Amino acid sequence: MKFKRFKHSIIQNLITKIFVKIGLPTKDAKICSYSLVRSDLRGVWSHGIARTSIYCKRIIKKVANPKPKLKIKFFSQSIAHLNGNNGLGFVIANRAIDEAIKMAKKNGIGLVAVSNSNHFGMAALYLEKAVKHNCMSWIFTNASPALPPHGAMAPHFGTSPFAFGCPTNKKDVPFILDMATSSVARGKLKFAAQRGEKIPYGLALDKQGNPTNDGFKAFEGIMLPFGGMKGAGLSWMMDIVGGIFTGANFNGKVKNAISNFSGPANVGHVFICVKSNIFQKNFNQRMMQGIQTAKRLKLAKGFKTILHPGEPEAIKLKENLKKGIPISPDIVADLKNLAQSLGIKIKL
Amino acid sequence: MKFKRFKHSIIQNLITKIFVKIGLPTKDAKICSYSLVRSDLRGVWSHGIARTSIYCKRIIKKVANPKPKLKIKFFSQSIAHLNGNNGLGFVIANRAIDEAIKMAKKNGIGLVAVSNSNHFGMAALYLEKAVKHNCMSWIFTNASPALPPHGAMAPHFGTSPFAFGCPTNKKDVPFILDMATSSVARGKLKFAAQRGEKIPYGLALDKQGNPTNDGFKAFEGIMLPFGGMKGAGLSWMMDIVGGIFTGANFNGKVKNAISNFSGPANVGHVFICVKSNIFQKNFNQRMMQGIQTAKRLKLAKGFKTILHPGEPEAIKLKENLKKGIPISPDIVADLKNLAQSLGIKIKL
Repeated sequence: MKFKRFKHSIIQNLITKIFVKIGLPTKDAKICSYSLVRSDLRGVWSHGIARTSIYCKRIIKKVANPKPKLKIKFFSQSIAHLNGNNGLGFVIANRAIDEAIKMAKKNGIGLVAVSNSNHFGMAALYLEKAVKHNCMSWIFTNASPALPPHGAMAPHFGTSPFAFGCPTNKKDVPFILDMATSSVARGKLKFAAQRGEKIPYGLALDKQGNPTNDGFKAFEGIMLPFGGMKGAGLSWMMDIVGGIFTGANFNGKVKNAISNFSGPANVGHVFICVKSNIFQKNFNQRMMQGIQTAKRLKLAKGFKTILHPGEPEAIKLKENLKKGIPISPDIVADLKNLAQSLGIKIKL
Repeated sequence: MKFKRFKHSIIQNLITKIFVKIGLPTKDAKICSYSLVRSDLRGVWSHGIARTSIYCKRIIKKVANPKPKLKIKFFSQSIAHLNGNNGLGFVIANRAIDEAIKMAKKNGIGLVAVSNSNHFGMAALYLEKAVKHNCMSWIFTNASPALPPHGAMAPHFGTSPFAFGCPTNKKDVPFILDMATSSVARGKLKFAAQRGEKIPYGLALDKQGNPTNDGFKAFEGIMLPFGGMKGAGLSWMMDIVGGIFTGANFNGKVKNAISNFSGPANVGHVFICVKSNIFQKNFNQRMMQGIQTAKRLKLAKGFKTILHPGEPEAIKLKENLKKGIPISPDIVADLKNLAQSLGIKIKL
């Protein structure tokens, strides 16, 4: 398939218009379009503009709220709860991380727990924000059923990413660990299914519990957590922290954003920020030492360089900012159709 | 090898005497003996009484401090730094988690960062404590070089566990996720090496970077992180949080507790506690719902039941409290020799 590159600002403006048209305040529409385009810029296309129509559909079908009233309640200097009022995840999560950052800057640490939210896209979006403010950050979310607990053969927990970030000595190359608890991102499996592509064995089972390398059968079947029972344990933790703790849905009840329009998804998240240089003023320099030493280690077979988590995405970001975002023809067509159905005139 | 069972209190008393004899205050000696015996009770023998002589040796060789003066400094209601003054990890970590729990109970959240510590044993020890006080808890530590970053072939990061715990509806069966970032616990590899046992392929490379199933070659070689680049990312995070953030050693400089007596290990830890029912009064009941549903899911091939993280250890604990701890003859001999060398009269 031939991918065409588009200047990211053109796509971003178009998506802003789309979100405004379906009822979001301009400020919120801009948050959403920034978030989606940012994902593609970083090469995380599975969480990017390809999902525009999915988020819109939830608004149009009235199972997500275009104009949520966010309610935040502080329990101490360093912990708060945010009720997202069923707004889009991008809007709610941005507010939550902002509040967590504020508490961390003032009091060293801040935790914001969120209920009544929706899928918030790529966790790295919020890590990037925290890092800009010199925070270390952990982000937790739950999600619709996809992974089995260890010993089971039914989808139950989300593929919710484990997400940690902190600044380095390079502003544009933060340490960003954002990894699905599944062996592969669900979004990538979806696109393999849509395009009839093969996937490696070991990522998923088919409906009957047999190993498969067929993208469609895998998407219809049971995804496996990464690292066996360890990844399974992490995905269970995500349901506890994101769901049980926050007051959101949990226990397999978070609705799938793509396929279940019977009501609000009620996703839950937790954002923890800590002032990274609170104890060590030279935190960023210590990070630099760590990275430089790692890069000088003996290379494993097949590797030309050692990159830290977040570095491949920073390289991709630089490239895509310059050359434009590569978008596949089906996604371009999808965006065009969406815009036209809303009466937005575009040329792509 | 024939394992004999011993009543845990007998072993615990003996180990207390040993630690007192080498100079620890009785209170601290009791913390250490409890910690070691507790690990065996939970079936985590790799972190248990088999390590008694290792910890003692560091005191005897004067690279660890039997009577540390712990210095704690509070930066706000919810964040503090503890300088461990090179005491044993058990003593320091117990103080740290106590302070984190206190802050969490009072202010919803508490973080204690620790520098100048030593190996703290099984992370689950501190999770168990937090859980008893109705806290959710995350624990981070760094450790001596064992795992390569993704793309490298040299040991650099620790096998430091990822550790999360929270209460459930059953007081004796908390949710405890305590998992090494390696494919296997380093302690288990050590014993396989000592006993000439085989290990499964995929856990480690030999010194030359080739896959091996030889316990000794693996222990001498390069352990691999679990889940490929994901586990590698987690182990890098551990060095950042445990070392860079706290002011402890990092970047491959934490000294190996077993083999390096050239000076203090300077391990770093971070303890985060959050009041689990701060937002949802029925947190424990929600946990119960989650566990019950998971247990009713369709079983995967080869499984008879679904256990949550921490449940196998809770079952083992109950059994060992009743029947005694199984200890191998070499460990019994090791304990006897240690006691006798210190002039302690024992019958085992």
